[in-house]
Amino acid sequence: MTDLFESPDSTREEILAAAYRALCRHGYAPLTIEKIGAELDKSTSLVYHHYEGKDDLLLACLEFMLDQYETEFVEAEITDPRGTLEAAFDDFLDPEMPAERHDFIRALVELRGQAPHDERYREQFGRSDRLFEQRFADIIEAGIESGQFRAVDADSVAGMLHTLFSGALINHATAEDERLTALREEIDAYLEARLYA
Amino acid sequence: MTDLFESPDSTREEILAAAYRALCRHGYAPLTIEKIGAELDKSTSLVYHHYEGKDDLLLACLEFMLDQYETEFVEAEITDPRGTLEAAFDDFLDPEMPAERHDFIRALVELRGQAPHDERYREQFGRSDRLFEQRFADIIEAGIESGQFRAVDADSVAGMLHTLFSGALINHATAEDERLTALREEIDAYLEARLYA
Repeated sequence: MTDLFESPDSTREEILAAAYRALCRHGYAPLTIEKIGAELDKSTSLVYHHYEGKDDLLLACLEFMLDQYETEFVEAEITDPRGTLEAAFDDFLDPEMPAERHDFIRALVELRGQAPHDERYREQFGRSDRLFEQRFADIIEAGIESGQFRAVDADSVAGMLHTLFSGALINHATAEDERLTALREEIDAYLEARLYA
Repeated sequence: MTDLFESPDSTREEILAAAYRALCRHGYAPLTIEKIGAELDKSTSLVYHHYEGKDDLLLACLEFMLDQYETEFVEAEITDPRGTLEAAFDDFLDPEMPAERHDFIRALVELRGQAPHDERYREQFGRSDRLFEQRFADIIEAGIESGQFRAVDADSVAGMLHTLFSGALINHATAEDERLTALREEIDAYLEARLYA
């Protein structure tokens, strides 16, 4: 995830990168603009100048990340559908994932918890759900075209994979390592049974 | 869910039932002890007498629900494993579900969002994850024994089903009806391919 913020090319992007780092470090609940300012190489007052409050800034941060993913997904040609699909699960179902990713997943669960009572979060997560589900569908379509995958209904299988992905994220904090490994094996068995040609 | 609170047999259970109703009506964020008191046929001061704050009361409410489910699961003989499994998905993947269940799912997403920063919520959701995953495993074992299911690794398939269940709940607020129906069909296809004999 960090690479999205690797070379901020404006003050706005520097602030968004600081918000991302502070969110991973502290989580959502205790996060303040002051804590975000502490991650920034500039004065905290600059943050107040650009954003009204922490939700305003975090929503801009989510939007920026989704914009980046969208561009990346549209531009990336899918040359190895099976490898691309498996890499997505490798990234998020790996008990050995980097600490920063653990932190980000935990923060995402908190942010998702804002969606039921805050329309702006609901909108961002709705966009995120559609984006990642469409990404799965594109990978599946590419695999059907190349002959690696069977002629399944791409949207249905994409919905299943996105639901598994969301479930794994939400259960992340309470899941034990060996359960993650067993889950990954069963997802592979599902893909073998339903998708791989 | 309401039937868990149908015949409260003590003041404590009446308060928990009021907390459940208030949670469904208002959601977590704007919930107050006053709003919970308004659902109670007694004085709000009684709530303050028993519980220190809204989290204290909501955690007791979650614990009570899990206790009830646990008793129910232990006592219920599984005579129709396939029907029992499908009923679980019918209840939570039905676009026509009762409004109260919609409200409760929304509230659960908010409560789950407390887990990353509040150990007490993490504990309850950890217990809930283990309880429902074990329930799926018991149903699968029963099906293997009766010959309705293949001799799969019950824990792995249970982990998969629980993950799907969690993902469907978390995506609930942003999911469109036709996607829920497509997801349900793909889950059935998975069960046909992997589980049903």
